[in-house]
Amino acid sequence: MNDSALQTLLQQLTFNEDGLIPAIAQQHNTGEVLMMAWMNEESIRETLNNNRVCYWSRSRQKLWRKGESSGQEQTLKGFRLDCDKDTILLAVDQIGAACHTGRRTCFYQVVDGDELLTDSEPLIDPAVLYGK
Amino acid sequence: MNDSALQTLLQQLTFNEDGLIPAIAQQHNTGEVLMMAWMNEESIRETLNNNRVCYWSRSRQKLWRKGESSGQEQTLKGFRLDCDKDTILLAVDQIGAACHTGRRTCFYQVVDGDELLTDSEPLIDPAVLYGK
Repeated sequence: MNDSALQTLLQQLTFNEDGLIPAIAQQHNTGEVLMMAWMNEESIRETLNNNRVCYWSRSRQKLWRKGESSGQEQTLKGFRLDCDKDTILLAVDQIGAACHTGRRTCFYQVVDGDELLTDSEPLIDPAVLYGK
Repeated sequence: MNDSALQTLLQQLTFNEDGLIPAIAQQHNTGEVLMMAWMNEESIRETLNNNRVCYWSRSRQKLWRKGESSGQEQTLKGFRLDCDKDTILLAVDQIGAACHTGRRTCFYQVVDGDELLTDSEPLIDPAVLYGK
């Protein structure tokens, strides 16, 4: 995407009071919803320029190049906006585990009757992912 | 879900400063991501009690029983939380159009090269949906 087109796109988006917009990551070929995180202008610019997904980490207050410490990168396959242009849907190709717990998806807790169950196990030990 | 289990669930969730939590709606049998909206405690309670999805409308500042004016209801098929318990993933069965534009999904705008294209058309005229 050229700079001028990117600028036009960014100007259309509705960011919240912190300059952020929610982004849902979906595995492009299976439809699995992997995670939801936040992007700012800079992370959107970087993601569209590099085709590697970059979020904004609210806890660390810095760019979060997905996989930079864990190796579990997300390649961008598609970038969609909703009707109000206040939510992004990313089609991604996720290497390994999207979740910091080592699971494929962050959405591994499910309401089952009166209980909240965990229905998937880590693919990778987080201690290995983060070299702890 | 019984009242005590529901209360336990609600106490585990991380709501934002407005008492809201983002909820992604995904069509249960196709994987299509339909929309993202917000829930508060009351809307979560109502959704889990009735198996009909109810959001919190930030613009109208009231419960938003999806489909109550348009007829385009969402039946709840599954309720998931992410690792941080600050995002909900709803598996739903969507009648007709999830989007207020009359489209199946809200995510109908896609970056294609330097352009933002619309790649689906309304299933239903919004004027019919909302009786205007």
